[in-house]
Amino acid sequence: MRAASYSTDGIKPIIYNKISTTGQNQPVFTRLLDLIRSVWQDNLKVEMIILASAGPLDPKTGYIYDAPNIPGWKDFPLGEKLHKEFGIPVIVGNDANLAALGEWKFGSGKGHHDLIYMTLSTGIGGGIICNDQLVEGAFGLAGELGHITVLPDGPTCSCGKQGHLEAISSGQGIVQYVDQMLMQGESSILSTSKELNAWEVAKAAETGDELAIKAFSRAGFYLGLALASIIHIFNPSIIILGGGVSKSGALIIDPMIEKMKVEIMDKSYLENLEIVTTKLGDEVGLLGALVLGRQKLQIE
Amino acid sequence: MRAASYSTDGIKPIIYNKISTTGQNQPVFTRLLDLIRSVWQDNLKVEMIILASAGPLDPKTGYIYDAPNIPGWKDFPLGEKLHKEFGIPVIVGNDANLAALGEWKFGSGKGHHDLIYMTLSTGIGGGIICNDQLVEGAFGLAGELGHITVLPDGPTCSCGKQGHLEAISSGQGIVQYVDQMLMQGESSILSTSKELNAWEVAKAAETGDELAIKAFSRAGFYLGLALASIIHIFNPSIIILGGGVSKSGALIIDPMIEKMKVEIMDKSYLENLEIVTTKLGDEVGLLGALVLGRQKLQIE
Repeated sequence: MRAASYSTDGIKPIIYNKISTTGQNQPVFTRLLDLIRSVWQDNLKVEMIILASAGPLDPKTGYIYDAPNIPGWKDFPLGEKLHKEFGIPVIVGNDANLAALGEWKFGSGKGHHDLIYMTLSTGIGGGIICNDQLVEGAFGLAGELGHITVLPDGPTCSCGKQGHLEAISSGQGIVQYVDQMLMQGESSILSTSKELNAWEVAKAAETGDELAIKAFSRAGFYLGLALASIIHIFNPSIIILGGGVSKSGALIIDPMIEKMKVEIMDKSYLENLEIVTTKLGDEVGLLGALVLGRQKLQIE
Repeated sequence: MRAASYSTDGIKPIIYNKISTTGQNQPVFTRLLDLIRSVWQDNLKVEMIILASAGPLDPKTGYIYDAPNIPGWKDFPLGEKLHKEFGIPVIVGNDANLAALGEWKFGSGKGHHDLIYMTLSTGIGGGIICNDQLVEGAFGLAGELGHITVLPDGPTCSCGKQGHLEAISSGQGIVQYVDQMLMQGESSILSTSKELNAWEVAKAAETGDELAIKAFSRAGFYLGLALASIIHIFNPSIIILGGGVSKSGALIIDPMIEKMKVEIMDKSYLENLEIVTTKLGDEVGLLGALVLGRQKLQIE
């Protein structure tokens, strides 16, 4: 995890620090406290703490319903605990939502009023800006673009439901498909003898491995299908893709674009639509938190 | 079509008129001009004309790309032509979008900040309010909730693509399914001897006709599937269903709710979600146009 302190203007951190989320037998929350203290500038007034966290969570209270990758963060009152510790206002936002804010203000989304951000990683997260405002929904649970059904009765998603985009086009979806095909006897330089990840599948695809290529094509195909629906719903002027899987580039992007073009019902949706991968990289969450903090403090 | 003149406050029309859209060998545009003149109050200053039209259209210019049910309204500069005729500002909005605005301001959506409106009619239209603002998208083409893919390779939609919600759960989708099943020899009190409509299928279902019941169940099933995705994307606090097909009530609503509950990934999405049918009825478009006009005139 990363932390930074910022002044009321500019985007260059005063202090920046990065540590691994887990380690040394300390609970994640203890490590988070240490990390925040490490970027705390004692001679300056700290106005607010803003966190980008995995969700689902309640952005109004900073209550984490469930952060599947962090042990113990289920029904975890993160905002309240941090407020108790530091005594200043604490805001917790969904990480993909904040990434969308960061891209909109400082990244490829600058100047756009209607933007879709999608992170293709182990899972798939989404962030939506409409009319220059973040779409959080009535209770802060909006933006779950990974949990759109693209294939009824398709593979089981991390959330337990069938056929969601995340179950097919995420890193985990790609790996599960490869595993399943290997088990059915498809030949490949990949094998089930060790635990695969999407990066290894991408490497295999680059050497021409047919199963690996097929796994990415399938992921891109359903991503394109989902994006067509998303475009019909939002009519954005830009779609920004982030996350590790988006770094596989043409492997997933080409079949995605191809399918998207087939599925869009009117070419006017595509005429002024940009589709790009993120340039802010791993700092996008920090920058999104900065935007949210300044909005809350009404600095801009 | 309907027209009304309103004062700057209140929702009771000063003059109201309603005529059939086509007839007497006159072009629709001529009939529209007459209709507008019929509600024009000569002794009062008319500030603005606001129209709710079938789309897709460009709400910035009032240009109709294609209104499939109106002969000649393809690439039709409706806003410009009306402005030339009457010399005052003209705004043209997508009918389902304006219905959402009407419901939000005066109907079941009052007090809600995040609202989904869906009209189930011959086709399926949508209107979305997020953060108290209408979601129009970058070029006014947003809100096409009928054109979400719910069944890849499913039946062909009015837009030409496969497996959209509209192709299955609209009035036309229901009728096409019945026709197809009759052609395959399923028994029913309905027959292909005359052109069916969804209302007749609903009547047959009420007498216990199994095919008719199945057609509505199928429509409700995919509607529930689509709504689950929509809820994951928007986390609304209310969903309002309008249009003729929604009047079939439990026939379509019960299977819809059942499927939706199965597909929602976390019960927190449903805990404070209302699902209702419209109470504003056929006047909802007029009221939505009124809201939009007052917003543009900054009266409220």
